[in-house]
Amino acid sequence: MSTQNHREEVFPEVSESLATDLYELTMAQGYYKTGRADRRSVFHMFFRTAPFGGRYAIAAGIGPFADWLEALQFSDGDIGFLGTLTDKDGRPLLDPHFLEYLSRWRFRGSIETVPEGTVVFPHEPIVRVRAPLLDAQLIETALLAIVNFQTLVATKASRVRLAAGKDEVLEFGLRRSHGLNGGLFASRAAYIGGVDATSNVMAAAHFGIPVRGTHAHSWVMAFNGEGKAFDAYAAEFPHNLVLLVDTYNTLDGVRNAIAAGLRLRDKGAALLGIRLDSGDLAYLAAEARKLLDAEGFQATRIIASNDLDERLITSLKAQGAPIDSWGVGTKLVTAHDDPALDGVYKLAVLENDAGEMVERMKLSEQPVKTSIPGALDVVRLKRDVRCVGDVIFDTLTEEQPGLAETSIMVISPEDPWKRKIIPTKGLTFKRLLEPLFADGRRIGRREALSVMRQRTLANLATFDRAIFRFDNPHVYAAGLSPSLFERREKIRESHFAKVTARLGTLDNNDPEDVGTVKEKRDRS
Amino acid sequence: MSTQNHREEVFPEVSESLATDLYELTMAQGYYKTGRADRRSVFHMFFRTAPFGGRYAIAAGIGPFADWLEALQFSDGDIGFLGTLTDKDGRPLLDPHFLEYLSRWRFRGSIETVPEGTVVFPHEPIVRVRAPLLDAQLIETALLAIVNFQTLVATKASRVRLAAGKDEVLEFGLRRSHGLNGGLFASRAAYIGGVDATSNVMAAAHFGIPVRGTHAHSWVMAFNGEGKAFDAYAAEFPHNLVLLVDTYNTLDGVRNAIAAGLRLRDKGAALLGIRLDSGDLAYLAAEARKLLDAEGFQATRIIASNDLDERLITSLKAQGAPIDSWGVGTKLVTAHDDPALDGVYKLAVLENDAGEMVERMKLSEQPVKTSIPGALDVVRLKRDVRCVGDVIFDTLTEEQPGLAETSIMVISPEDPWKRKIIPTKGLTFKRLLEPLFADGRRIGRREALSVMRQRTLANLATFDRAIFRFDNPHVYAAGLSPSLFERREKIRESHFAKVTARLGTLDNNDPEDVGTVKEKRDRS
Repeated sequence: MSTQNHREEVFPEVSESLATDLYELTMAQGYYKTGRADRRSVFHMFFRTAPFGGRYAIAAGIGPFADWLEALQFSDGDIGFLGTLTDKDGRPLLDPHFLEYLSRWRFRGSIETVPEGTVVFPHEPIVRVRAPLLDAQLIETALLAIVNFQTLVATKASRVRLAAGKDEVLEFGLRRSHGLNGGLFASRAAYIGGVDATSNVMAAAHFGIPVRGTHAHSWVMAFNGEGKAFDAYAAEFPHNLVLLVDTYNTLDGVRNAIAAGLRLRDKGAALLGIRLDSGDLAYLAAEARKLLDAEGFQATRIIASNDLDERLITSLKAQGAPIDSWGVGTKLVTAHDDPALDGVYKLAVLENDAGEMVERMKLSEQPVKTSIPGALDVVRLKRDVRCVGDVIFDTLTEEQPGLAETSIMVISPEDPWKRKIIPTKGLTFKRLLEPLFADGRRIGRREALSVMRQRTLANLATFDRAIFRFDNPHVYAAGLSPSLFERREKIRESHFAKVTARLGTLDNNDPEDVGTVKEKRDRS
Repeated sequence: MSTQNHREEVFPEVSESLATDLYELTMAQGYYKTGRADRRSVFHMFFRTAPFGGRYAIAAGIGPFADWLEALQFSDGDIGFLGTLTDKDGRPLLDPHFLEYLSRWRFRGSIETVPEGTVVFPHEPIVRVRAPLLDAQLIETALLAIVNFQTLVATKASRVRLAAGKDEVLEFGLRRSHGLNGGLFASRAAYIGGVDATSNVMAAAHFGIPVRGTHAHSWVMAFNGEGKAFDAYAAEFPHNLVLLVDTYNTLDGVRNAIAAGLRLRDKGAALLGIRLDSGDLAYLAAEARKLLDAEGFQATRIIASNDLDERLITSLKAQGAPIDSWGVGTKLVTAHDDPALDGVYKLAVLENDAGEMVERMKLSEQPVKTSIPGALDVVRLKRDVRCVGDVIFDTLTEEQPGLAETSIMVISPEDPWKRKIIPTKGLTFKRLLEPLFADGRRIGRREALSVMRQRTLANLATFDRAIFRFDNPHVYAAGLSPSLFERREKIRESHFAKVTARLGTLDNNDPEDVGTVKEKRDRS
């Protein structure tokens, strides 16, 4: 599909409803014109590979996605713009009847998601959409853009949190974010993932995140001498004084900060901290600590920044660097070593001509890219306070696994030889998906960000820490129920049988019709 | 500076004027209270290290930054929120008099920038701000967030363009972008950097970028058989048909596309293209080409996608893969292998107590982190159609280099042993900075994105191609004028002389007072 509109005209009045790939709209028109728009469908959003060489992610971005979806509606401006799109010969790309339909359309589906701050594993549904096919298709791009990014940054933040232990972690990344809104939502996700505060004032206002700051090198350069700059800042903010000491020479800066701190002490206030922003942080922190302690500044905290991430923090702590607080910016907000989550959105069930729900599956020569059919949910198994396994199952065809059995088998979706059998005695069960939209209406609870952040910290505490290790992390048993595994294998086998039977003919590749789903529960 | 506001309250009504680090506001209050707010200053935004292992960047993001700056004004909602910030003991963080001042404040400065789509090199000013100190400080964070990100993506796009040669390049990255706005501005920057079109409908509307799309796997999965799905899409979009062939098995998909193309041909329309989105692209493209050609589809284009970047495109072209069009997503919009530009914003000149303009310099043990004082501009030297060197010079203290000399020396800002002497005979000279704001008013031209894109392509053609090589790129002679080099050395030497003279005393580290600048020209 191409449009050759090399026009200069711009339509700045369009809404965020157009934050979509063009093909969602052309497919929507195709569904509309072929009578498929209202067919009931189930899609899942999930990721295949955990980021940063890890084994898990922290789900985030659901609330902002719900905000986008609540506002989703094609305005006159949107429709007007879409009407200008043409093919390479100048014919209108989209049909006027379809555009008229689109102008009246509102999202009609139901959505269930894991709550933000939940630990999730590859192939587990983070978002499940049960909606008319057209509706489910039109929300794909924005859902992925919003949830992929925030899940990625929340995951990175959780790793920084694990590295920092109980130390304070501050997010300082706005200036290296992917634009102002990239920074706003990076701050949001970082807080959900476990940081303590941000430097981003707009994020503080929008989301109620604690906000922090020190001063920049330019403050020091605006005075005749570092000592004068420090005294001036102390005079202005005597009860919140954190001084940046590396504008010229770090240890001279520490001495000047101590001098300013001594003068401040005479006035009854205290030097809260100094910040190191360059150089050998392990060495400078140790030297600064000695200088501070020698002058009675044992309570003055040392804040470190400068391209920190979870691995550098781990290294500095292993070296015994006396750093109390970690300022993390670029590496966190850009998810620097893995700046995209590979989250995808795949059709898993679709109503057929006879009105029956039929499983659908995308095949691939790579097992990891073969999708999982069904209307999925996950049950998380816990023994005492420890999570021991997750079972992905199809809510249309089976009861929740484990309810009537003495053991549960979990089968890896990528390698059927990897299985774990878990005795059910003493287990507690928790379903992960919770309602967000029902029949087009937002119904999910609205939580404060601090609640989501607490969920992350509580979640991290319920898994074996080895799962979160940065190098060679332990594999958690998150996989398919035997019933789901069997159905998926049957579809795959049936496909290859058909390919073999019809070898050499065209149109031999449709992996369905292995039996429609007998629905157990609610329709749509 | 810390605030311990663990409140749940949120202020969603605040404006983008709060898209700033907190310390810009606390420093602004400090400047205001110490009588420094109105001192004339010069700041530069520049980067130190070119991204992606390269030697250059493509400047972008200036227009969106100017849009933000035009709207910059602290609303009642903004001031209301700032008034709620407290220190750890619950005292108000910001002074009511200052907040009152802030509510009336508007940006008063002048700004010069390189035009978007200009090739720039490390240490060259991309943006120069001449403004009252408070004003220059308050715009820092947003300037960096916007220009860093878009410059980064435009640079990545230019590399993809160089790899693809004259082939079509499509940007498909919204779903992996850093949020919806991250995607919007990534599309903008990618187009400036040289891609031909985007899949992002909102970006197409906002910026007039050509928009493209094919269809997703879900379209194929929504039909009983790939052939039926292809026929249905062909019926809907007969004049723009590009079919995605890898939902089940790629070469079967090509055969089904050919069958659909034959049926379409009978109706007088043509199969424009097929898209390969997984697997061994070199092999599959070659096999697909053979199958297409054998059935008379020589004009049908092959579009490839799947985690492509400039290196993979180079490799596929070197293998002779018959790919006509490149869909580039994740790796482009996230700048995947280097997702942050290290752009910084440094004070370079500040008015002193006597009303004189004085050079300011940030020192560092790392030469690359030592800033360049002065009110800088760059003159680009061209011989015939080829750029041969860039000279950074101080507009306050020297004439444009080369105007009255027989040769020009360019000295590396990082290594004074690296110098190049360029005879001036036959050279043409171009100053890079152009006005954007004058005394708070936006004055720069507003260009269509296509003009910026053309500038990128024209710029790329005027440098030796070796400078843009992906591995071991040639170093372009971009450096300091001898006069600027001497002044910088003098400040540095004077600093160390003072340190030596006052060794052991505190407050010995202020690198200024080596002579105030005698201004040549306009007083900001």
